[in-house]
Amino acid sequence: MTFNERLNEVCTKRNSLVCVGLDVDLNKIPKFILEKKAPQVYFSQAIIDTTIEYAAAYKINTAFFEAYGSKGWEAMSKIVNYLPDDVIKIADAKRGDIGNTSRMYARAFFSELNFDAITVNPYLGHDAIAPFLENEEKGVFILCHTTNKGAEDFQKFSNGEKKLFELVAQQVQKWNVRNNCGLVVGATYPEEMKHIRNLVPELPFLIPGLGAQGGDFDLAITYATNEKGVGAIFNFSRSIIYSSDGEDFATVAGEKAKQMRDDIIRILSKNKRI
Amino acid sequence: MTFNERLNEVCTKRNSLVCVGLDVDLNKIPKFILEKKAPQVYFSQAIIDTTIEYAAAYKINTAFFEAYGSKGWEAMSKIVNYLPDDVIKIADAKRGDIGNTSRMYARAFFSELNFDAITVNPYLGHDAIAPFLENEEKGVFILCHTTNKGAEDFQKFSNGEKKLFELVAQQVQKWNVRNNCGLVVGATYPEEMKHIRNLVPELPFLIPGLGAQGGDFDLAITYATNEKGVGAIFNFSRSIIYSSDGEDFATVAGEKAKQMRDDIIRILSKNKRI
Repeated sequence: MTFNERLNEVCTKRNSLVCVGLDVDLNKIPKFILEKKAPQVYFSQAIIDTTIEYAAAYKINTAFFEAYGSKGWEAMSKIVNYLPDDVIKIADAKRGDIGNTSRMYARAFFSELNFDAITVNPYLGHDAIAPFLENEEKGVFILCHTTNKGAEDFQKFSNGEKKLFELVAQQVQKWNVRNNCGLVVGATYPEEMKHIRNLVPELPFLIPGLGAQGGDFDLAITYATNEKGVGAIFNFSRSIIYSSDGEDFATVAGEKAKQMRDDIIRILSKNKRI
Repeated sequence: MTFNERLNEVCTKRNSLVCVGLDVDLNKIPKFILEKKAPQVYFSQAIIDTTIEYAAAYKINTAFFEAYGSKGWEAMSKIVNYLPDDVIKIADAKRGDIGNTSRMYARAFFSELNFDAITVNPYLGHDAIAPFLENEEKGVFILCHTTNKGAEDFQKFSNGEKKLFELVAQQVQKWNVRNNCGLVVGATYPEEMKHIRNLVPELPFLIPGLGAQGGDFDLAITYATNEKGVGAIFNFSRSIIYSSDGEDFATVAGEKAKQMRDDIIRILSKNKRI
């Protein structure tokens, strides 16, 4: 089964388009957890236990683990192995390099760490992304339009007919020969998202920016999903995992994940997408 | 002292523009090293010992260590700590993400691992790069024009007046307020390199592509360096470190590094740059 087929199947079976983002910062997790032997692992496992019922995917932000050196990398490995096989496991790594180096990154995240998908940066072009695409079961979400202000600096560079992010979307569509490509499209630019969806109706979107970054829920969900109510997953990191800094952090995160899941279903239902 | 000042000082003092690239692949190092306890560390330390006399900088390609999980990360840490403080230590990591995530990457490479500089990807724009630029002593080489065929896919996207890689060069010049920005410019596109040098006379270049990737020596050195014979460092990975797969691997690597150092000096001298 190709990655994109599996993504749709998992979202449908689990009745959720929620991706829980594990940006595990030791300065933000409840203080009492810092006394545990492996605080990032303890925190993440507790969050996974309470959110798993409402999530289709988990996205591990590699920066937050690399910041703690080899111990952080070890923690990341334990967390991805803790996740069950019926959710999608995404490495938010934003890698990309020349072919022989991208091949090593693919090995790091798909073989050594057993992620299902990775985020990559398009700047180096097709041959830099090709090594990630070789296995149809492994997914690659290519940065198209990001959530931040700096997205204006280069992504909107235009030749008069199209902007760079539009060219990226169209090229990725061509690279999708094994049905395992998707795009990262930020919720903070809803008009651009709508436009990208029209350009590439088939590619799945990984959508950051709905929680702490303040993207509009209704617009993002309406613009990103297809007629069957799938084709996009919506990531929530800080807005789920740091909902409480007390002993109840995991319970509250679970409630928040349920609320996000239900809010998305409500909007899809209102739009007659499901 | 700013990073760019220090880079020039180190190159002048060491009389070298050679950067040795540690892309340490266990499938390519001499077989007998695989029996050692930490083969990547053993190999790298031996290479450092024999090349240090001829090198201004070392570039550690993070992919080749991540591919071996937390053990690889541990090896990377040992290798960067083994390097003396009078050479430039570059993490070839090609990172870049929204602000709070880039901050964690900066922490990973500048605090946790004590690199002097990092390579980053420009696609997310200024706010994604800003966290790497806060400390004037730490350098940031931003991808401008890469060595690979895929460089044509997006980097040459043009608005009629300028191409994306030219816009990147000009923007990076503006971001260089602390004198710690540089550009990655591939030797395999010499005409583009010449053009970038004219656009941004002051920014240092990190230049891959001269060894195994086949870039033209004379052109790259002539186009990249400034009138004082500095302003660029030339990376050699496979062409130095895998020069021999026998017991003499380190000795041969040292001879190769010397040859590269001398070839560069000869070309600079011929051009009356030194």
